[in-house]
Amino acid sequence: MRNIKLTIEYDGGNYKGWQRQPEGNSIEEEIEKILSMMMNTEIDILGSGRTDSGVHAKGQVANFYTESNIKTDKIKYALNRMLPSDIYIIDAEEVDLKFNARKSAHEKTYRYVVYNCDQPSVFYERYSFYVSKKLNIEKMIEASKLLIGEKDFKVYSKLGSSTKTSIRNLKNIEIKREGNFIYFYYTANGFLYNMVRMITGTLIEVGMGKKSIEHIKLALETGDKKYVGKNAPSRGLTLMEVKYNNL
Amino acid sequence: MRNIKLTIEYDGGNYKGWQRQPEGNSIEEEIEKILSMMMNTEIDILGSGRTDSGVHAKGQVANFYTESNIKTDKIKYALNRMLPSDIYIIDAEEVDLKFNARKSAHEKTYRYVVYNCDQPSVFYERYSFYVSKKLNIEKMIEASKLLIGEKDFKVYSKLGSSTKTSIRNLKNIEIKREGNFIYFYYTANGFLYNMVRMITGTLIEVGMGKKSIEHIKLALETGDKKYVGKNAPSRGLTLMEVKYNNL
Repeated sequence: MRNIKLTIEYDGGNYKGWQRQPEGNSIEEEIEKILSMMMNTEIDILGSGRTDSGVHAKGQVANFYTESNIKTDKIKYALNRMLPSDIYIIDAEEVDLKFNARKSAHEKTYRYVVYNCDQPSVFYERYSFYVSKKLNIEKMIEASKLLIGEKDFKVYSKLGSSTKTSIRNLKNIEIKREGNFIYFYYTANGFLYNMVRMITGTLIEVGMGKKSIEHIKLALETGDKKYVGKNAPSRGLTLMEVKYNNL
Repeated sequence: MRNIKLTIEYDGGNYKGWQRQPEGNSIEEEIEKILSMMMNTEIDILGSGRTDSGVHAKGQVANFYTESNIKTDKIKYALNRMLPSDIYIIDAEEVDLKFNARKSAHEKTYRYVVYNCDQPSVFYERYSFYVSKKLNIEKMIEASKLLIGEKDFKVYSKLGSSTKTSIRNLKNIEIKREGNFIYFYYTANGFLYNMVRMITGTLIEVGMGKKSIEHIKLALETGDKKYVGKNAPSRGLTLMEVKYNNL
Protein backbone atom coordinates (compact mmCIF):
# COMPACT_ATOMS: atom_id res chain seq x y z
CA MET A 1 0.00 0.00 0.00
CA ARG A 2 1.30 3.48 -0.90
CA ASN A 3 0.11 6.94 0.16
CA ILE A 4 0.41 9.57 -2.59
CA LYS A 5 0.35 13.30 -1.87
CA LEU A 6 -0.75 15.63 -4.68
CA THR A 7 -0.18 19.39 -4.86
CA ILE A 8 -2.79 20.91 -7.12
CA GLU A 9 -3.41 24.20 -8.92
CA TYR A 10 -6.85 25.06 -10.33
CA ASP A 11 -8.93 27.81 -11.79
CA GLY A 12 -12.19 27.29 -9.91
CA GLY A 13 -14.23 29.47 -12.27
CA ASN A 14 -15.89 26.57 -14.07
CA TYR A 15 -16.46 24.29 -11.05
CA LYS A 16 -18.96 23.88 -8.22
CA GLY A 17 -15.98 23.76 -5.83
CA TRP A 18 -13.44 21.21 -4.64
CA GLN A 19 -15.82 18.69 -3.12
CA ARG A 20 -17.64 15.98 -5.04
CA GLN A 21 -21.29 16.96 -5.63
CA PRO A 22 -24.25 14.76 -6.56
CA GLU A 23 -24.72 16.92 -9.69
CA GLY A 24 -21.03 16.61 -10.62
CA ASN A 25 -18.61 19.30 -11.76
CA SER A 26 -16.18 19.29 -8.84
CA ILE A 27 -12.39 19.37 -8.96
CA GLU A 28 -12.15 16.33 -6.68
CA GLU A 29 -14.28 14.29 -9.08
CA GLU A 30 -12.22 15.28 -12.14
CA ILE A 31 -9.07 13.98 -10.45
CA GLU A 32 -10.70 10.85 -8.97
CA LYS A 33 -12.19 9.93 -12.34
CA ILE A 34 -8.78 9.84 -14.01
CA LEU A 35 -6.99 8.13 -11.09
CA SER A 36 -9.67 5.42 -10.94
CA MET A 37 -9.26 4.79 -14.66
CA MET A 38 -5.46 4.73 -14.34
CA MET A 39 -5.41 2.41 -11.32
CA ASN A 40 -8.29 0.30 -12.61
CA THR A 41 -10.09 0.50 -9.28
CA GLU A 42 -12.07 3.21 -7.50
CA ILE A 43 -9.77 5.84 -5.95
CA ASP A 44 -10.94 8.29 -3.29
CA ILE A 45 -8.82 11.36 -2.74
CA LEU A 46 -8.90 13.42 0.45
CA GLY A 47 -8.35 17.18 0.14
CA SER A 48 -6.89 19.46 2.81
CA GLY A 49 -10.26 21.19 2.88
CA ARG A 50 -13.11 22.26 0.63
CA THR A 51 -12.97 25.31 -1.54
CA ASP A 52 -16.24 26.93 -2.66
CA SER A 53 -17.52 27.33 -6.19
CA GLY A 54 -15.32 29.86 -8.03
CA VAL A 55 -12.47 29.72 -5.50
CA HIS A 56 -9.04 29.04 -7.01
CA ALA A 57 -5.98 27.19 -5.72
CA LYS A 58 -2.26 27.48 -6.29
CA GLY A 59 -1.41 24.90 -3.65
CA GLN A 60 -4.33 22.66 -2.70
CA VAL A 61 -3.11 19.37 -1.23
CA ALA A 62 -4.79 15.96 -1.36
CA ASN A 63 -3.76 12.36 -0.74
CA PHE A 64 -4.91 8.89 -1.73
CA TYR A 65 -3.98 5.28 -1.05
CA THR A 66 -3.20 2.81 -3.79
CA GLU A 67 -1.92 -0.75 -4.26
CA SER A 68 -0.73 0.16 -7.75
CA ASN A 69 2.98 0.42 -8.42
CA ILE A 70 2.76 3.09 -11.13
CA LYS A 71 5.64 5.49 -10.43
CA THR A 72 4.64 8.82 -8.86
CA ASP A 73 6.28 10.75 -11.74
CA LYS A 74 4.15 8.78 -14.15
CA ILE A 75 1.01 9.49 -12.09
CA LYS A 76 1.70 13.23 -12.27
CA TYR A 77 2.43 13.09 -15.98
CA ALA A 78 -0.63 11.01 -16.84
CA LEU A 79 -2.95 13.15 -14.72
CA ASN A 80 -1.73 16.34 -16.40
CA ARG A 81 -2.19 14.81 -19.84
CA MET A 82 -5.80 13.88 -19.10
CA LEU A 83 -7.04 16.63 -16.79
CA PRO A 84 -8.85 19.64 -18.27
CA SER A 85 -6.59 22.67 -18.79
CA ASP A 86 -7.93 24.43 -15.68
CA ILE A 87 -6.59 21.77 -13.26
CA TYR A 88 -2.86 21.07 -12.99
CA ILE A 89 -0.89 18.69 -10.75
CA ILE A 90 2.19 20.61 -9.58
CA ASP A 91 3.63 17.70 -7.67
CA ALA A 92 3.02 14.05 -6.77
CA GLU A 93 5.09 12.32 -4.10
CA GLU A 94 4.93 9.18 -2.03
CA VAL A 95 4.53 9.98 1.67
CA ASP A 96 4.28 8.18 5.00
CA LEU A 97 1.12 6.10 5.36
CA LYS A 98 0.10 8.26 8.35
CA PHE A 99 -0.07 11.43 6.22
CA ASN A 100 -3.64 12.79 5.96
CA ALA A 101 -4.05 15.93 3.80
CA ARG A 102 -6.75 17.30 6.09
CA LYS A 103 -5.76 16.19 9.57
CA SER A 104 -2.00 16.62 9.19
CA ALA A 105 -2.31 20.23 7.93
CA HIS A 106 -1.01 22.69 10.48
CA GLU A 107 -1.11 25.95 8.54
CA LYS A 108 -2.91 27.37 5.53
CA THR A 109 -2.47 30.56 3.54
CA TYR A 110 -5.22 32.17 1.47
CA ARG A 111 -4.97 35.20 -0.78
CA TYR A 112 -7.81 37.56 -1.64
CA VAL A 113 -7.46 39.92 -4.64
CA VAL A 114 -9.35 43.21 -5.04
CA TYR A 115 -9.19 45.14 -8.31
CA ASN A 116 -9.44 48.74 -7.12
CA CYS A 117 -9.72 51.11 -10.05
CA ASP A 118 -12.25 53.60 -11.40
CA GLN A 119 -13.01 51.26 -14.33
CA PRO A 120 -13.49 47.48 -14.15
CA SER A 121 -11.54 45.13 -16.43
CA VAL A 122 -13.07 42.07 -18.09
CA PHE A 123 -9.67 40.36 -17.78
CA TYR A 124 -9.52 40.45 -13.98
CA GLU A 125 -13.20 39.65 -13.42
CA ARG A 126 -12.59 35.94 -13.03
CA TYR A 127 -9.81 36.27 -10.46
CA SER A 128 -10.64 39.34 -8.39
CA PHE A 129 -13.39 41.41 -6.79
CA TYR A 130 -13.86 44.80 -8.45
CA VAL A 131 -14.22 47.78 -6.10
CA SER A 132 -14.43 51.19 -7.78
CA LYS A 133 -14.10 53.34 -4.66
CA LYS A 134 -10.45 53.93 -3.73
CA LEU A 135 -9.76 51.94 -0.56
CA ASN A 136 -7.76 53.32 2.36
CA ILE A 137 -4.99 50.74 2.79
CA GLU A 138 -3.66 52.20 6.05
CA LYS A 139 -7.10 51.95 7.68
CA MET A 140 -7.47 48.33 6.52
CA ILE A 141 -4.02 47.39 7.84
CA GLU A 142 -4.81 49.03 11.19
CA ALA A 143 -8.10 47.12 11.40
CA SER A 144 -6.50 43.83 10.36
CA LYS A 145 -4.13 43.95 13.35
CA LEU A 146 -7.08 43.53 15.71
CA LEU A 147 -7.84 40.17 14.08
CA ILE A 148 -4.42 38.61 14.61
CA GLY A 149 -4.06 35.95 17.28
CA GLU A 150 -5.95 33.00 18.75
CA LYS A 151 -9.56 34.13 18.81
CA ASP A 152 -13.13 32.93 18.46
CA PHE A 153 -13.96 33.83 14.85
CA LYS A 154 -17.55 32.57 14.93
CA VAL A 155 -18.92 35.99 13.90
CA TYR A 156 -16.81 35.74 10.72
CA SER A 157 -18.20 32.38 9.64
CA LYS A 158 -21.35 31.17 8.01
CA LEU A 159 -23.96 30.01 10.53
CA GLY A 160 -24.29 26.27 10.86
CA SER A 161 -20.63 25.42 10.28
CA SER A 162 -20.23 21.97 11.76
CA THR A 163 -16.84 22.38 13.42
CA LYS A 164 -16.18 21.51 17.05
CA THR A 165 -14.68 24.86 17.90
CA SER A 166 -14.70 28.25 16.25
CA ILE A 167 -11.38 29.26 17.79
CA ARG A 168 -8.60 29.68 15.26
CA ASN A 169 -5.11 31.09 15.41
CA LEU A 170 -4.92 33.79 12.73
CA LYS A 171 -1.14 34.15 12.63
CA ASN A 172 -0.74 36.82 10.02
CA ILE A 173 -2.58 39.20 7.69
CA GLU A 174 -0.63 41.08 5.04
CA ILE A 175 -2.33 43.75 2.94
CA LYS A 176 -0.54 45.47 0.08
CA ARG A 177 -1.31 47.50 -3.01
CA GLU A 178 0.41 46.75 -6.31
CA GLY A 179 -0.81 49.07 -9.04
CA ASN A 180 -4.58 48.76 -9.15
CA PHE A 181 -4.60 45.48 -7.22
CA ILE A 182 -4.89 45.04 -3.48
CA TYR A 183 -3.69 41.69 -2.12
CA PHE A 184 -4.81 40.32 1.24
CA TYR A 185 -2.81 37.34 2.55
CA TYR A 186 -4.15 35.37 5.53
CA THR A 187 -2.21 32.65 7.37
CA ALA A 188 -3.82 30.57 10.13
CA ASN A 189 -3.77 27.10 11.64
CA GLY A 190 -7.18 26.69 9.99
CA PHE A 191 -10.14 28.71 8.79
CA LEU A 192 -13.88 28.54 9.45
CA TYR A 193 -16.32 28.28 6.56
CA ASN A 194 -16.35 31.62 4.67
CA MET A 195 -14.02 33.19 7.25
CA VAL A 196 -11.56 34.70 4.75
CA ARG A 197 -14.33 36.12 2.57
CA MET A 198 -16.18 37.62 5.55
CA ILE A 199 -13.06 39.18 7.05
CA THR A 200 -12.09 40.56 3.64
CA GLY A 201 -15.59 41.94 3.06
CA THR A 202 -15.40 43.66 6.44
CA LEU A 203 -11.92 45.08 5.82
CA ILE A 204 -13.08 46.41 2.44
CA GLU A 205 -15.90 48.28 4.20
CA VAL A 206 -13.32 49.71 6.60
CA GLY A 207 -11.27 50.81 3.58
CA MET A 208 -14.38 52.48 2.14
CA GLY A 209 -15.17 54.28 5.38
CA LYS A 210 -18.43 52.36 5.84
CA LYS A 211 -17.12 50.52 8.89
CA SER A 212 -14.68 51.68 11.57
CA ILE A 213 -11.87 50.09 13.56
CA GLU A 214 -14.34 50.13 16.47
CA HIS A 215 -16.71 47.84 14.53
CA ILE A 216 -13.93 45.23 14.20
CA LYS A 217 -13.50 45.21 17.97
CA LEU A 218 -17.23 45.05 18.60
CA ALA A 219 -17.75 42.18 16.15
CA LEU A 220 -15.24 39.99 18.02
CA GLU A 221 -16.48 41.09 21.46
CA THR A 222 -20.22 40.83 20.93
CA GLY A 223 -20.40 38.25 18.12
CA ASP A 224 -23.05 40.46 16.53
CA LYS A 225 -23.13 40.11 12.73
CA LYS A 226 -24.24 43.73 12.28
CA TYR A 227 -20.59 44.74 12.73
CA VAL A 228 -19.46 42.41 9.95
CA GLY A 229 -19.32 43.40 6.26
CA LYS A 230 -20.71 41.57 3.25
CA ASN A 231 -19.14 38.25 2.25
CA ALA A 232 -16.61 39.11 -0.49
CA PRO A 233 -17.29 37.05 -3.66
CA SER A 234 -15.52 33.71 -4.10
CA ARG A 235 -13.77 34.59 -7.39
CA GLY A 236 -11.18 36.79 -5.59
CA LEU A 237 -10.06 33.94 -3.34
CA THR A 238 -7.13 31.55 -3.85
CA LEU A 239 -5.83 28.80 -1.54
CA MET A 240 -2.10 29.47 -1.77
CA GLU A 241 -0.41 26.93 0.46
CA VAL A 242 -1.03 24.17 2.98
CA LYS A 243 1.83 23.41 5.36
CA TYR A 244 2.50 20.14 7.17
CA ASN A 245 4.68 19.20 10.12
CA ASN A 246 7.36 16.68 9.34
CA LEU A 247 5.84 13.28 9.94
CA MET B 1 -29.77 60.78 -37.02
CA ARG B 2 -26.71 60.26 -34.81
CA ASN B 3 -23.64 58.06 -35.29
CA ILE B 4 -22.31 56.53 -32.06
CA LYS B 5 -18.80 55.12 -31.75
CA LEU B 6 -18.20 52.47 -29.08
CA THR B 7 -14.82 51.36 -27.71
CA ILE B 8 -15.14 47.85 -26.33
CA GLU B 9 -13.16 45.48 -24.12
CA TYR B 10 -13.97 41.77 -23.98
CA ASP B 11 -12.76 38.42 -22.77
CA GLY B 12 -13.46 36.30 -25.84
CA GLY B 13 -13.06 32.99 -23.99
CA ASN B 14 -16.81 32.28 -23.80
CA TYR B 15 -17.77 33.50 -27.29
CA LYS B 16 -17.76 32.25 -30.87
CA GLY B 17 -16.06 35.51 -31.85
CA TRP B 18 -17.06 39.10 -32.58
CA GLN B 19 -19.37 38.46 -35.54
CA ARG B 20 -23.03 37.49 -35.25
CA GLN B 21 -23.49 33.75 -35.91
CA PRO B 22 -26.65 31.83 -36.81
CA GLU B 23 -26.14 29.70 -33.67
CA GLY B 24 -25.67 32.80 -31.49
CA ASN B 25 -23.05 33.50 -28.81
CA SER B 26 -21.20 36.39 -30.45
CA ILE B 27 -20.04 39.61 -28.84
CA GLU B 28 -21.73 41.68 -31.56
CA GLU B 29 -25.07 40.05 -30.80
CA GLU B 30 -24.80 40.63 -27.04
CA ILE B 31 -24.33 44.36 -27.65
CA GLU B 32 -26.97 44.62 -30.40
CA LYS B 33 -29.55 42.82 -28.25
CA ILE B 34 -29.27 45.41 -25.48
CA LEU B 35 -29.08 48.43 -27.81
CA SER B 36 -32.18 47.25 -29.69
CA MET B 37 -34.06 46.91 -26.41
CA MET B 38 -32.86 50.31 -25.23
CA MET B 39 -33.69 52.12 -28.51
CA ASN B 40 -36.89 50.12 -29.03
CA THR B 41 -35.93 49.35 -32.64
CA GLU B 42 -33.46 46.99 -34.25
CA ILE B 43 -29.89 48.30 -34.03
CA ASP B 44 -27.06 46.96 -36.18
CA ILE B 45 -23.55 47.68 -35.06
CA LEU B 46 -20.54 47.61 -37.34
CA GLY B 47 -17.21 46.46 -35.89
CA SER B 48 -13.75 47.48 -37.08
CA GLY B 49 -13.24 43.84 -38.01
CA ARG B 50 -14.01 40.32 -36.85
CA THR B 51 -12.14 38.62 -34.05
CA ASP B 52 -12.14 34.81 -33.92
CA SER B 53 -13.54 32.59 -31.20
CA GLY B 54 -11.43 32.99 -28.06
CA VAL B 55 -9.69 36.19 -29.21
CA HIS B 56 -9.87 39.08 -26.73
CA ALA B 57 -10.07 42.85 -27.15
CA LYS B 58 -8.93 45.82 -25.14
CA GLY B 59 -9.90 48.32 -27.82
CA GLN B 60 -12.35 46.94 -30.36
CA VAL B 61 -14.29 49.77 -32.06
CA ALA B 62 -17.81 49.68 -33.50
CA ASN B 63 -20.41 52.22 -34.57
CA PHE B 64 -24.16 52.37 -35.06
CA TYR B 65 -26.76 54.84 -36.25
CA THR B 66 -29.76 55.84 -34.19
CA GLU B 67 -32.66 58.31 -34.19
CA SER B 68 -32.84 58.07 -30.41
CA ASN B 69 -31.79 61.03 -28.31
CA ILE B 70 -30.59 59.01 -25.32
CA LYS B 71 -27.38 60.72 -24.18
CA THR B 72 -24.15 58.88 -25.06
CA ASP B 73 -23.11 58.76 -21.38
CA LYS B 74 -26.41 57.11 -20.61
CA ILE B 75 -25.91 54.60 -23.45
CA LYS B 76 -22.53 53.59 -22.05
CA TYR B 77 -23.87 53.34 -18.52
CA ALA B 78 -26.94 51.30 -19.49
CA LEU B 79 -24.93 48.94 -21.71
CA ASN B 80 -22.45 48.24 -18.91
CA ARG B 81 -25.26 47.57 -16.46
CA MET B 82 -26.85 45.02 -18.78
CA LEU B 83 -23.92 43.38 -20.57
CA PRO B 84 -22.39 40.17 -19.17
CA SER B 85 -19.29 40.77 -17.04
CA ASP B 86 -16.93 39.68 -19.84
CA ILE B 87 -17.91 42.58 -22.15
CA TYR B 88 -17.32 46.19 -21.13
CA ILE B 89 -17.93 49.47 -22.97
CA ILE B 90 -14.89 51.67 -22.30
CA ASP B 91 -16.26 54.63 -24.19
CA ALA B 92 -19.28 55.84 -26.18
CA GLU B 93 -19.12 59.06 -28.18
CA GLU B 94 -21.09 60.78 -30.90
CA VAL B 95 -19.08 61.06 -34.11
CA ASP B 96 -19.42 62.45 -37.63
CA LEU B 97 -22.03 60.64 -39.73
CA LYS B 98 -19.29 59.65 -42.19
CA PHE B 99 -17.40 57.63 -39.54
CA ASN B 100 -17.37 53.89 -40.33
CA ALA B 101 -15.60 51.68 -37.78
CA ARG B 102 -14.33 49.35 -40.48
CA LYS B 103 -13.65 51.58 -43.47
CA SER B 104 -12.29 54.57 -41.55
CA ALA B 105 -9.74 52.48 -39.63
CA HIS B 106 -6.19 53.27 -40.72
CA GLU B 107 -4.15 51.31 -38.19
CA LYS B 108 -4.61 48.38 -35.84
CA THR B 109 -2.47 46.93 -33.09
CA TYR B 110 -2.69 43.32 -31.91
CA ARG B 111 -0.84 41.70 -29.02
CA TYR B 112 0.02 38.02 -28.74
CA VAL B 113 1.02 36.58 -25.34
CA VAL B 114 3.17 33.47 -24.86
CA TYR B 115 3.63 31.95 -21.40
CA ASN B 116 7.15 30.56 -21.61
CA CYS B 117 7.99 28.58 -18.53
CA ASP B 118 8.88 24.98 -17.63
CA GLN B 119 5.47 24.53 -15.96
CA PRO B 120 2.11 25.72 -17.31
CA SER B 121 -0.25 27.79 -15.16
CA VAL B 122 -4.02 27.29 -15.09
CA PHE B 123 -4.39 31.04 -14.50
CA TYR B 124 -2.79 32.14 -17.77
CA GLU B 125 -4.34 29.37 -19.90
CA ARG B 126 -7.25 31.55 -20.98
CA TYR B 127 -5.11 34.51 -22.07
CA SER B 128 -1.89 33.05 -23.41
CA PHE B 129 -0.27 30.22 -25.36
CA TYR B 130 1.89 27.99 -23.19
CA VAL B 131 5.31 27.06 -24.62
CA SER B 132 7.56 25.02 -22.31
CA LYS B 133 10.75 25.23 -24.37
CA LYS B 134 12.69 28.41 -23.63
CA LEU B 135 12.41 30.67 -26.68
CA ASN B 136 15.34 32.60 -28.12
CA ILE B 137 14.09 36.20 -28.10
CA GLU B 138 17.03 37.61 -30.07
CA LYS B 139 16.42 35.15 -32.91
CA MET B 140 12.69 36.00 -32.99
CA ILE B 141 13.42 39.75 -33.05
CA GLU B 142 15.91 39.27 -35.90
CA ALA B 143 13.37 37.23 -37.86
CA SER B 144 10.56 39.72 -37.18
CA LYS B 145 12.52 42.51 -38.87
CA LEU B 146 12.20 40.72 -42.21
CA LEU B 147 8.44 41.03 -41.97
CA ILE B 148 8.30 44.79 -41.49
CA GLY B 149 7.10 46.92 -44.41
CA GLU B 150 4.55 46.86 -47.22
CA LYS B 151 4.51 43.25 -48.41
CA ASP B 152 2.27 40.54 -49.78
CA PHE B 153 1.39 38.50 -46.68
CA LYS B 154 -0.73 35.91 -48.48
CA VAL B 155 1.43 33.04 -47.22
CA TYR B 156 0.59 34.15 -43.66
CA SER B 157 -3.17 34.04 -44.12
CA LYS B 158 -5.78 31.37 -44.24
CA LEU B 159 -6.56 30.23 -47.77
CA GLY B 160 -9.77 31.53 -49.20
CA SER B 161 -9.71 34.93 -47.50
CA SER B 162 -12.02 37.11 -49.53
CA THR B 163 -10.01 40.33 -49.56
CA LYS B 164 -9.16 42.23 -52.74
CA THR B 165 -5.45 42.38 -52.02
CA SER B 166 -3.14 40.52 -49.68
CA ILE B 167 -0.68 43.40 -49.49
CA ARG B 168 -0.50 45.01 -46.06
CA ASN B 169 1.85 47.51 -44.46
CA LEU B 170 3.19 45.87 -41.31
CA LYS B 171 4.59 48.98 -39.65
CA ASN B 172 6.03 47.55 -36.48
CA ILE B 173 6.64 44.35 -34.51
CA GLU B 174 7.83 44.58 -30.93
CA ILE B 175 8.83 41.45 -29.03
CA LYS B 176 9.74 41.55 -25.36
CA ARG B 177 10.08 39.23 -22.40
CA GLU B 178 8.65 40.19 -18.99
CA GLY B 179 9.25 37.46 -16.45
CA ASN B 180 7.81 34.26 -17.90
CA PHE B 181 5.70 36.10 -20.49
CA ILE B 182 6.69 37.01 -24.01
CA TYR B 183 4.67 39.78 -25.64
CA PHE B 184 4.44 40.24 -29.40
CA TYR B 185 2.94 43.56 -30.57
CA TYR B 186 1.98 43.99 -34.22
CA THR B 187 0.92 47.29 -35.82
CA ALA B 188 -0.30 47.45 -39.43
CA ASN B 189 -2.71 49.33 -41.66
CA GLY B 190 -4.73 46.11 -41.63
CA PHE B 191 -4.33 42.37 -41.18
CA LEU B 192 -5.31 39.36 -43.28
CA TYR B 193 -7.39 36.56 -41.75
CA ASN B 194 -5.22 34.66 -39.20
CA MET B 195 -2.16 36.73 -40.17
CA VAL B 196 -1.09 37.59 -36.61
CA ARG B 197 -1.52 34.03 -35.38
CA MET B 198 0.40 32.58 -38.34
CA ILE B 199 3.27 35.04 -38.04
CA THR B 200 3.43 34.43 -34.28
CA GLY B 201 3.37 30.66 -34.77
CA THR B 202 6.26 30.99 -37.23
CA LEU B 203 8.29 33.29 -34.96
CA ILE B 204 7.78 30.84 -32.07
CA GLU B 205 9.26 28.07 -34.24
CA VAL B 206 12.21 30.36 -34.98
CA GLY B 207 12.59 30.90 -31.22
CA MET B 208 12.57 27.12 -30.72
CA GLY B 209 15.16 26.56 -33.44
CA LYS B 210 12.69 24.59 -35.60
CA LYS B 211 12.68 27.31 -38.27
CA SER B 212 15.45 29.64 -39.37
CA ILE B 213 15.67 33.28 -40.47
CA GLU B 214 16.11 31.88 -43.99
CA HIS B 215 12.65 30.25 -43.78
CA ILE B 216 11.08 33.65 -43.08
CA LYS B 217 12.65 35.04 -46.25
CA LEU B 218 11.66 32.00 -48.32
CA ALA B 219 8.05 32.09 -47.11
CA LEU B 220 7.62 35.66 -48.38
CA GLU B 221 9.55 35.05 -51.61
CA THR B 222 8.00 31.75 -52.65
CA GLY B 223 4.60 31.92 -50.93
CA ASP B 224 5.11 28.27 -49.96
CA LYS B 225 3.32 27.36 -46.72
CA LYS B 226 5.95 24.79 -45.81
CA TYR B 227 8.10 27.66 -44.53
CA VAL B 228 5.32 28.87 -42.24
CA GLY B 229 4.79 27.63 -38.66
CA LYS B 230 1.62 26.38 -37.03
CA ASN B 231 -1.20 28.85 -36.42
CA ALA B 232 -0.78 30.01 -32.79
CA PRO B 233 -4.01 29.43 -30.79
CA SER B 234 -6.57 32.24 -30.59
CA ARG B 235 -6.57 32.55 -26.78
CA GLY B 236 -3.18 34.36 -26.77
CA LEU B 237 -4.45 37.12 -29.07
CA THR B 238 -5.88 40.53 -28.12
CA LEU B 239 -7.00 43.39 -30.38
CA MET B 240 -5.39 46.30 -28.53
CA GLU B 241 -6.24 49.41 -30.52
CA VAL B 242 -7.84 50.68 -33.72
CA LYS B 243 -6.72 54.12 -34.91
CA TYR B 244 -8.68 56.50 -37.12
CA ASN B 245 -7.70 59.58 -39.12
CA ASN B 246 -9.41 62.74 -38.05
CA LEU B 247 -12.59 63.01 -40.07
